[in-house]
Amino acid sequence: MSNTVITIGREYGSGGRLIGKQLAQALGYSFLDKELITLAAQKSGMSAQLFADIDENATNSLLYSLASGAYMMGSRMAPGSDMPMTDKLFILQSNIIREEAEKGPCVVVGRCGDYVMEGRESVYNIFIQAPFEDRVKRAVAEYGLEEKGAADAVRRTDKKRANYYNYYSNRKWGRSSNYHLCVDSSKLGIDGTVQLLTQFIHLALAHGKHE
Amino acid sequence: MSNTVITIGREYGSGGRLIGKQLAQALGYSFLDKELITLAAQKSGMSAQLFADIDENATNSLLYSLASGAYMMGSRMAPGSDMPMTDKLFILQSNIIREEAEKGPCVVVGRCGDYVMEGRESVYNIFIQAPFEDRVKRAVAEYGLEEKGAADAVRRTDKKRANYYNYYSNRKWGRSSNYHLCVDSSKLGIDGTVQLLTQFIHLALAHGKHE
Repeated sequence: MSNTVITIGREYGSGGRLIGKQLAQALGYSFLDKELITLAAQKSGMSAQLFADIDENATNSLLYSLASGAYMMGSRMAPGSDMPMTDKLFILQSNIIREEAEKGPCVVVGRCGDYVMEGRESVYNIFIQAPFEDRVKRAVAEYGLEEKGAADAVRRTDKKRANYYNYYSNRKWGRSSNYHLCVDSSKLGIDGTVQLLTQFIHLALAHGKHE
Repeated sequence: MSNTVITIGREYGSGGRLIGKQLAQALGYSFLDKELITLAAQKSGMSAQLFADIDENATNSLLYSLASGAYMMGSRMAPGSDMPMTDKLFILQSNIIREEAEKGPCVVVGRCGDYVMEGRESVYNIFIQAPFEDRVKRAVAEYGLEEKGAADAVRRTDKKRANYYNYYSNRKWGRSSNYHLCVDSSKLGIDGTVQLLTQFIHLALAHGKHE
Protein backbone atom coordinates (compact mmCIF):
# COMPACT_ATOMS: atom_id res chain seq x y z
CA MET A 1 0.00 0.00 0.00
CA SER A 2 1.18 3.51 -0.78
CA ASN A 3 2.36 5.83 1.98
CA THR A 4 -0.14 8.50 2.94
CA VAL A 5 0.74 11.90 1.49
CA ILE A 6 -0.95 15.11 2.60
CA THR A 7 -0.51 18.14 0.37
CA ILE A 8 -1.31 21.62 1.67
CA GLY A 9 -2.01 24.68 -0.45
CA ARG A 10 -2.41 27.88 1.54
CA GLU A 11 -3.30 31.52 1.20
CA TYR A 12 -0.59 33.82 2.54
CA GLY A 13 -1.24 34.69 6.20
CA SER A 14 -3.64 31.78 6.76
CA GLY A 15 -1.16 29.91 8.97
CA GLY A 16 -1.11 27.05 6.49
CA ARG A 17 2.60 26.28 6.86
CA LEU A 18 2.42 26.13 10.66
CA ILE A 19 -0.76 24.05 10.49
CA GLY A 20 0.97 21.63 8.11
CA LYS A 21 3.99 21.38 10.41
CA GLN A 22 1.84 20.66 13.48
CA LEU A 23 -0.29 18.20 11.53
CA ALA A 24 2.88 16.32 10.51
CA GLN A 25 3.96 16.23 14.18
CA ALA A 26 0.50 15.05 15.33
CA LEU A 27 0.52 12.20 12.81
CA GLY A 28 4.22 11.39 13.03
CA TYR A 29 4.73 12.15 9.31
CA SER A 30 7.75 13.89 7.83
CA PHE A 31 7.32 17.52 6.79
CA LEU A 32 8.45 18.99 3.49
CA ASP A 33 8.51 22.70 2.94
CA LYS A 34 11.63 24.82 2.60
CA GLU A 35 13.71 21.68 3.05
CA LEU A 36 12.81 20.93 -0.56
CA ILE A 37 14.98 23.83 -1.64
CA THR A 38 18.01 22.61 0.27
CA LEU A 39 17.54 19.11 -1.08
CA ALA A 40 17.07 20.42 -4.61
CA ALA A 41 20.20 22.54 -4.30
CA GLN A 42 22.21 19.57 -3.06
CA LYS A 43 21.06 17.45 -6.00
CA SER A 44 21.74 20.11 -8.60
CA GLY A 45 24.97 21.42 -7.17
CA MET A 46 23.53 24.94 -7.40
CA SER A 47 23.12 27.63 -4.80
CA ALA A 48 20.35 27.17 -2.22
CA GLN A 49 20.08 30.96 -2.00
CA LEU A 50 19.42 31.26 -5.73
CA PHE A 51 16.68 28.65 -5.43
CA ALA A 52 15.19 30.35 -2.38
CA ASP A 53 14.93 33.60 -4.35
CA ILE A 54 12.92 32.00 -7.15
CA ASP A 55 10.98 29.47 -5.04
CA GLU A 56 7.29 29.27 -5.98
CA ASN A 57 7.80 31.69 -8.84
CA ALA A 58 6.36 30.78 -12.21
CA THR A 59 8.47 31.28 -15.29
CA ASN A 60 8.27 34.85 -16.47
CA SER A 61 8.45 34.68 -20.22
CA LEU A 62 10.12 38.10 -20.55
CA LEU A 63 12.77 37.23 -17.99
CA TYR A 64 13.19 33.89 -19.71
CA SER A 65 13.80 35.56 -23.06
CA LEU A 66 16.35 37.86 -21.50
CA ALA A 67 18.06 34.96 -19.76
CA SER A 68 18.15 32.97 -22.99
CA GLY A 69 19.53 36.02 -24.74
CA ALA A 70 22.20 36.36 -22.10
CA TYR A 71 23.08 32.73 -22.56
CA MET A 72 23.32 33.16 -26.30
CA MET A 73 25.68 36.04 -25.75
CA GLY A 74 27.97 33.85 -23.68
CA SER A 75 26.77 34.17 -20.11
CA ARG A 76 28.04 31.78 -17.45
CA MET A 77 25.02 29.49 -17.74
CA ALA A 78 26.17 26.01 -18.64
CA PRO A 79 25.22 24.56 -22.03
CA GLY A 80 22.07 22.46 -21.79
CA SER A 81 20.83 24.63 -18.98
CA ASP A 82 18.73 26.94 -21.10
CA MET A 83 15.64 25.75 -19.24
CA PRO A 84 14.38 28.57 -17.03
CA MET A 85 15.66 28.23 -13.46
CA THR A 86 12.09 28.29 -12.13
CA ASP A 87 11.18 25.28 -14.27
CA LYS A 88 14.34 23.51 -13.24
CA LEU A 89 13.56 24.05 -9.56
CA PHE A 90 9.96 22.88 -10.09
CA ILE A 91 11.15 19.64 -11.67
CA LEU A 92 13.80 19.03 -9.01
CA GLN A 93 11.29 19.65 -6.22
CA SER A 94 8.68 17.43 -7.88
CA ASN A 95 11.18 14.57 -8.09
CA ILE A 96 12.15 15.03 -4.45
CA ILE A 97 8.46 15.01 -3.37
CA ARG A 98 7.98 11.72 -5.24
CA GLU A 99 11.10 10.22 -3.67
CA GLU A 100 10.09 11.31 -0.16
CA ALA A 101 6.60 9.84 -0.67
CA GLU A 102 8.25 6.51 -1.45
CA LYS A 103 10.25 6.66 1.79
CA GLY A 104 7.33 7.25 4.16
CA PRO A 105 4.15 9.24 4.91
CA CYS A 106 4.64 12.99 4.63
CA VAL A 107 3.06 16.44 4.58
CA VAL A 108 4.06 18.68 1.66
CA VAL A 109 3.35 22.42 1.82
CA GLY A 110 2.95 24.31 -1.46
CA ARG A 111 4.97 23.50 -4.62
CA CYS A 112 1.85 22.14 -6.40
CA GLY A 113 2.11 19.01 -4.26
CA ASP A 114 -1.44 17.96 -5.20
CA TYR A 115 -0.62 18.11 -8.89
CA VAL A 116 2.73 16.36 -8.47
CA MET A 117 1.02 13.52 -6.57
CA GLU A 118 -1.91 13.24 -9.02
CA GLY A 119 -3.09 9.71 -9.72
CA ARG A 120 -1.27 8.33 -6.68
CA GLU A 121 -3.22 6.40 -4.02
CA SER A 122 -3.63 7.67 -0.48
CA VAL A 123 -3.12 11.36 -1.27
CA TYR A 124 -5.17 13.96 0.59
CA ASN A 125 -5.19 17.49 -0.77
CA ILE A 126 -5.97 20.29 1.66
CA PHE A 127 -6.31 24.04 1.17
CA ILE A 128 -6.01 26.50 4.07
CA GLN A 129 -7.63 29.88 3.63
CA ALA A 130 -8.86 32.79 5.75
CA PRO A 131 -10.56 36.14 5.11
CA PHE A 132 -8.20 38.77 3.69
CA GLU A 133 -8.32 41.09 6.74
CA ASP A 134 -7.47 38.23 9.12
CA ARG A 135 -4.51 37.29 6.98
CA VAL A 136 -3.16 40.83 6.88
CA LYS A 137 -3.40 40.99 10.70
CA ARG A 138 -1.63 37.67 11.03
CA ALA A 139 1.11 38.66 8.58
CA VAL A 140 1.83 41.75 10.72
CA ALA A 141 1.60 39.94 14.09
CA GLU A 142 3.35 36.70 13.19
CA TYR A 143 5.51 37.21 10.12
CA GLY A 144 6.82 40.64 11.15
CA LEU A 145 5.44 42.60 8.17
CA GLU A 146 5.17 46.38 8.64
CA GLU A 147 1.55 47.48 8.95
CA LYS A 148 2.00 49.94 6.13
CA GLY A 149 1.98 48.01 2.92
CA ALA A 150 1.04 44.71 4.60
CA ALA A 151 -2.22 44.40 2.65
CA ASP A 152 -0.30 44.87 -0.62
CA ALA A 153 2.27 42.30 0.39
CA VAL A 154 -0.44 39.73 1.18
CA ARG A 155 -2.14 40.41 -2.15
CA ARG A 156 1.18 40.13 -4.03
CA THR A 157 2.15 36.84 -2.38
CA ASP A 158 -1.28 35.33 -3.08
CA LYS A 159 -0.97 36.39 -6.68
CA LYS A 160 2.49 34.89 -6.94
CA ARG A 161 1.27 31.58 -5.46
CA ALA A 162 -1.75 31.51 -7.75
CA ASN A 163 0.45 32.21 -10.80
CA TYR A 164 2.87 29.49 -9.79
CA TYR A 165 0.11 26.95 -9.18
CA ASN A 166 -1.90 27.80 -12.29
CA TYR A 167 1.24 27.83 -14.46
CA TYR A 168 2.64 24.47 -13.40
CA SER A 169 -0.56 22.55 -12.64
CA ASN A 170 -2.86 23.94 -15.30
CA ARG A 171 -5.52 24.05 -12.59
CA LYS A 172 -6.98 26.95 -10.68
CA TRP A 173 -5.51 27.78 -7.27
CA GLY A 174 -8.10 27.73 -4.45
CA ARG A 175 -10.85 26.11 -6.54
CA SER A 176 -12.51 23.69 -4.13
CA SER A 177 -12.70 20.85 -6.66
CA ASN A 178 -8.87 20.53 -6.62
CA TYR A 179 -8.88 19.66 -2.93
CA HIS A 180 -10.48 17.09 -0.62
CA LEU A 181 -10.80 19.63 2.16
CA CYS A 182 -10.69 23.44 2.26
CA VAL A 183 -10.76 25.13 5.67
CA ASP A 184 -11.04 28.72 6.82
CA SER A 185 -8.45 28.71 9.62
CA SER A 186 -9.84 31.93 11.14
CA LYS A 187 -12.92 30.02 12.32
CA LEU A 188 -10.92 27.44 14.30
CA GLY A 189 -7.54 28.99 15.06
CA ILE A 190 -4.28 27.13 14.42
CA ASP A 191 -4.78 24.44 17.06
CA GLY A 192 -8.42 23.86 16.13
CA THR A 193 -7.55 23.55 12.45
CA VAL A 194 -4.81 21.02 13.24
CA GLN A 195 -7.34 19.03 15.31
CA LEU A 196 -9.86 19.06 12.46
CA LEU A 197 -7.29 17.97 9.88
CA THR A 198 -6.04 15.18 12.14
CA GLN A 199 -9.64 13.97 12.46
CA PHE A 200 -10.11 14.27 8.68
CA ILE A 201 -7.09 12.05 8.01
CA HIS A 202 -8.15 9.46 10.61
CA LEU A 203 -11.69 9.33 9.16
CA ALA A 204 -10.41 9.15 5.58
CA LEU A 205 -7.96 6.33 6.35
CA ALA A 206 -10.71 4.42 8.19
CA HIS A 207 -13.12 4.94 5.27
CA GLY A 208 -10.45 3.88 2.78
CA LYS A 209 -10.04 0.54 4.56
CA HIS A 210 -13.75 -0.23 4.22
CA GLU A 211 -13.90 0.50 0.51
CA MET B 1 -25.96 35.94 21.05
CA SER B 2 -27.21 34.85 17.63
CA ASN B 3 -28.38 31.32 17.01
CA THR B 4 -25.90 29.17 15.13
CA VAL B 5 -26.82 28.74 11.47
CA ILE B 6 -25.14 26.20 9.22
CA THR B 7 -25.61 26.62 5.48
CA ILE B 8 -24.83 23.78 3.10
CA GLY B 9 -24.18 24.09 -0.61
CA ARG B 10 -23.78 20.80 -2.41
CA GLU B 11 -22.93 19.27 -5.75
CA TYR B 12 -25.64 16.95 -7.05
CA GLY B 13 -24.96 13.36 -6.00
CA SER B 14 -22.53 14.32 -3.22
CA GLY B 15 -24.97 13.31 -0.48
CA GLY B 16 -25.03 16.90 0.79
CA ARG B 17 -28.73 16.94 1.70
CA LEU B 18 -28.51 13.71 3.70
CA ILE B 19 -25.31 14.91 5.37
CA GLY B 20 -27.06 18.17 6.31
CA LYS B 21 -30.02 16.28 7.73
CA GLN B 22 -27.84 13.97 9.83
CA LEU B 23 -25.72 16.91 10.98
CA ALA B 24 -28.89 18.70 12.16
CA GLN B 25 -29.91 15.55 14.05
CA ALA B 26 -26.45 15.16 15.61
CA LEU B 27 -26.48 18.76 16.83
CA GLY B 28 -30.17 18.95 17.69
CA TYR B 29 -30.73 21.80 15.20
CA SER B 30 -33.77 22.22 12.98
CA PHE B 31 -33.38 21.30 9.31
CA LEU B 32 -34.55 23.43 6.40
CA ASP B 33 -34.65 22.07 2.92
CA LYS B 34 -37.78 21.29 0.93
CA GLU B 35 -39.85 22.46 3.92
CA LEU B 36 -38.97 25.95 2.78
CA ILE B 37 -41.18 25.43 -0.28
CA THR B 38 -44.19 24.37 1.76
CA LEU B 39 -43.71 27.29 4.13
CA ALA B 40 -43.30 29.70 1.24
CA ALA B 41 -46.44 28.35 -0.41
CA GLN B 42 -48.40 28.74 2.81
CA LYS B 43 -47.28 32.35 3.18
CA SER B 44 -48.01 33.28 -0.40
CA GLY B 45 -51.24 31.35 -0.78
CA MET B 46 -49.81 29.83 -3.96
CA SER B 47 -49.39 26.23 -5.01
CA ALA B 48 -46.59 24.24 -3.39
CA GLN B 49 -46.36 22.17 -6.59
CA LEU B 50 -45.74 25.28 -8.68
CA PHE B 51 -42.97 26.33 -6.30
CA ALA B 52 -41.48 22.82 -6.29
CA ASP B 53 -41.24 22.96 -10.09
CA ILE B 54 -39.24 26.18 -10.10
CA ASP B 55 -37.27 25.62 -6.88
CA GLU B 56 -33.59 26.58 -7.24
CA ASN B 57 -34.17 27.83 -10.73
CA ALA B 58 -32.75 31.22 -11.63
CA THR B 59 -34.90 33.64 -13.56
CA ASN B 60 -34.73 32.91 -17.25
CA SER B 61 -34.93 36.27 -18.97
CA LEU B 62 -36.58 34.86 -22.11
CA LEU B 63 -39.25 33.04 -20.11
CA TYR B 64 -39.69 36.18 -18.04
CA SER B 65 -40.29 38.27 -21.14
CA LEU B 66 -42.82 35.75 -22.39
CA ALA B 67 -44.54 35.66 -19.01
CA SER B 68 -44.65 39.46 -18.85
CA GLY B 69 -46.01 39.52 -22.37
CA ALA B 70 -48.71 37.03 -21.37
CA TYR B 71 -49.55 39.22 -18.41
CA MET B 72 -49.84 42.31 -20.66
CA MET B 73 -52.19 40.40 -22.86
CA GLY B 74 -54.48 39.62 -19.94
CA SER B 75 -53.22 36.37 -18.46
CA ARG B 76 -54.47 35.20 -15.08
CA MET B 77 -51.42 36.60 -13.24
CA ALA B 78 -52.58 39.08 -10.63
CA PRO B 79 -51.61 42.75 -11.01
CA GLY B 80 -48.52 43.57 -9.03
CA SER B 81 -47.27 40.05 -9.54
CA ASP B 82 -45.19 40.75 -12.60
CA MET B 83 -42.09 39.79 -10.66
CA PRO B 84 -40.81 36.46 -12.03
CA MET B 85 -42.04 33.53 -9.93
CA THR B 86 -38.46 32.37 -9.39
CA ASP B 87 -37.55 35.74 -7.84
CA LYS B 88 -40.69 35.69 -5.73
CA LEU B 89 -39.85 32.22 -4.40
CA PHE B 90 -36.25 33.28 -3.71
CA ILE B 91 -37.45 36.26 -1.65
CA LEU B 92 -40.04 34.23 0.24
CA GLN B 93 -37.51 31.52 1.04
CA SER B 94 -34.90 34.09 2.11
CA ASN B 95 -37.38 35.66 4.54
CA ILE B 96 -38.30 32.27 5.96
CA ILE B 97 -34.61 31.37 6.45
CA ARG B 98 -34.14 34.63 8.39
CA GLU B 99 -37.23 33.98 10.53
CA GLU B 100 -36.17 30.40 11.28
CA ALA B 101 -32.69 31.59 12.26
CA GLU B 102 -34.30 33.92 14.80
CA LYS B 103 -36.27 31.04 16.31
CA GLY B 104 -33.35 28.67 16.93
CA PRO B 105 -30.18 27.08 15.52
CA CYS B 106 -30.69 25.45 12.14
CA VAL B 107 -29.12 23.79 9.10
CA VAL B 108 -30.18 25.20 5.71
CA VAL B 109 -29.49 23.23 2.54
CA GLY B 110 -29.18 25.13 -0.74
CA ARG B 111 -31.20 28.26 -1.58
CA CYS B 112 -28.10 30.52 -1.34
CA GLY B 113 -28.30 30.20 2.46
CA ASP B 114 -24.77 31.55 2.87
CA TYR B 115 -25.62 34.68 0.91
CA VAL B 116 -28.96 35.16 2.68
CA MET B 117 -27.20 34.94 6.09
CA GLU B 118 -24.28 37.21 5.06
CA GLY B 119 -23.11 39.59 7.77
CA ARG B 120 -24.87 37.63 10.50
CA GLU B 121 -22.90 36.29 13.46
CA SER B 122 -22.44 32.58 14.11
CA VAL B 123 -22.98 31.44 10.54
CA TYR B 124 -20.94 28.55 9.16
CA ASN B 125 -20.95 27.97 5.42
CA ILE B 126 -20.17 24.47 4.20
CA PHE B 127 -19.85 23.03 0.70
CA ILE B 128 -20.14 19.28 0.01
CA GLN B 129 -18.56 18.00 -3.18
CA ALA B 130 -17.33 14.72 -4.67
CA PRO B 131 -15.66 13.62 -7.91
CA PHE B 132 -18.05 13.53 -10.86
CA GLU B 133 -17.92 9.74 -11.34
CA ASP B 134 -18.72 9.08 -7.68
CA ARG B 135 -21.70 11.39 -7.90
CA VAL B 136 -23.09 9.70 -11.00
CA LYS B 137 -22.79 6.32 -9.24
CA ARG B 138 -24.55 7.67 -6.16
CA ALA B 139 -27.33 9.25 -8.22
CA VAL B 140 -28.03 5.87 -9.82
CA ALA B 141 -27.75 3.86 -6.58
CA GLU B 142 -29.49 6.25 -4.19
CA TYR B 143 -31.70 8.63 -6.15
CA GLY B 144 -33.01 6.05 -8.57
CA LEU B 145 -31.68 7.63 -11.79
CA GLU B 146 -31.44 5.35 -14.82
CA GLU B 147 -27.84 4.57 -15.68
CA LYS B 148 -28.34 5.78 -19.21
CA GLY B 149 -28.35 9.54 -19.14
CA ALA B 150 -27.35 9.72 -15.44
CA ALA B 151 -24.13 11.58 -16.20
CA ASP B 152 -26.07 14.17 -18.20
CA ALA B 153 -28.62 14.56 -15.41
CA VAL B 154 -25.87 15.18 -12.85
CA ARG B 155 -24.22 17.73 -15.13
CA ARG B 156 -27.55 19.50 -15.77
CA THR B 157 -28.48 19.70 -12.08
CA ASP B 158 -25.06 21.08 -11.16
CA LYS B 159 -25.41 23.68 -13.87
CA LYS B 160 -28.86 24.63 -12.62
CA ARG B 161 -27.59 25.01 -9.06
CA ALA B 162 -24.60 27.03 -10.18
CA ASN B 163 -26.84 29.33 -12.27
CA TYR B 164 -29.22 29.79 -9.38
CA TYR B 165 -26.44 30.55 -6.90
CA ASN B 166 -24.46 32.83 -9.21
CA TYR B 167 -27.61 34.70 -10.27
CA TYR B 168 -28.98 35.44 -6.82
CA SER B 169 -25.76 35.75 -4.81
CA ASN B 170 -23.49 37.36 -7.36
CA ARG B 171 -20.81 34.95 -6.14
CA LYS B 172 -19.35 31.86 -7.72
CA TRP B 173 -20.79 28.49 -6.73
CA GLY B 174 -18.17 26.11 -5.32
CA ARG B 175 -15.43 28.74 -4.99
CA SER B 176 -13.73 27.85 -1.72
CA SER B 177 -13.56 31.47 -0.50
CA ASN B 178 -17.38 31.56 -0.15
CA TYR B 179 -17.30 28.79 2.43
CA HIS B 180 -15.65 28.06 5.77
CA LEU B 181 -15.33 24.40 4.95
CA CYS B 182 -15.46 22.42 1.68
CA VAL B 183 -15.37 18.62 1.94
CA ASP B 184 -15.11 15.83 -0.62
CA SER B 185 -17.66 13.39 0.82
CA SER B 186 -16.29 10.47 -1.24
CA LYS B 187 -13.17 10.43 0.97
CA LEU B 188 -15.13 9.98 4.21
CA GLY B 189 -18.51 8.52 3.26
CA ILE B 190 -21.77 9.98 4.59
CA ASP B 191 -21.22 9.04 8.25
CA GLY B 192 -17.59 10.15 8.24
CA THR B 193 -18.49 13.50 6.70
CA VAL B 194 -21.20 14.05 9.32
CA GLN B 195 -18.64 13.26 12.05
CA LEU B 196 -16.14 15.72 10.57
CA LEU B 197 -18.74 18.49 10.26
CA THR B 198 -19.94 17.92 13.83
CA GLN B 199 -16.34 18.27 14.99
CA PHE B 200 -15.90 21.39 12.85
CA ILE B 201 -18.92 23.05 14.48
CA HIS B 202 -17.81 22.09 18.01
CA LEU B 203 -14.30 23.43 17.37
CA ALA B 204 -15.62 26.61 15.76
CA LEU B 205 -18.02 27.34 18.62
CA ALA B 206 -15.25 26.71 21.17
CA HIS B 207 -12.87 28.99 19.24
CA GLY B 208 -15.59 31.67 18.94
CA LYS B 209 -15.95 31.79 22.74
CA HIS B 210 -12.23 32.49 23.18
CA GLU B 211 -12.18 35.34 20.68
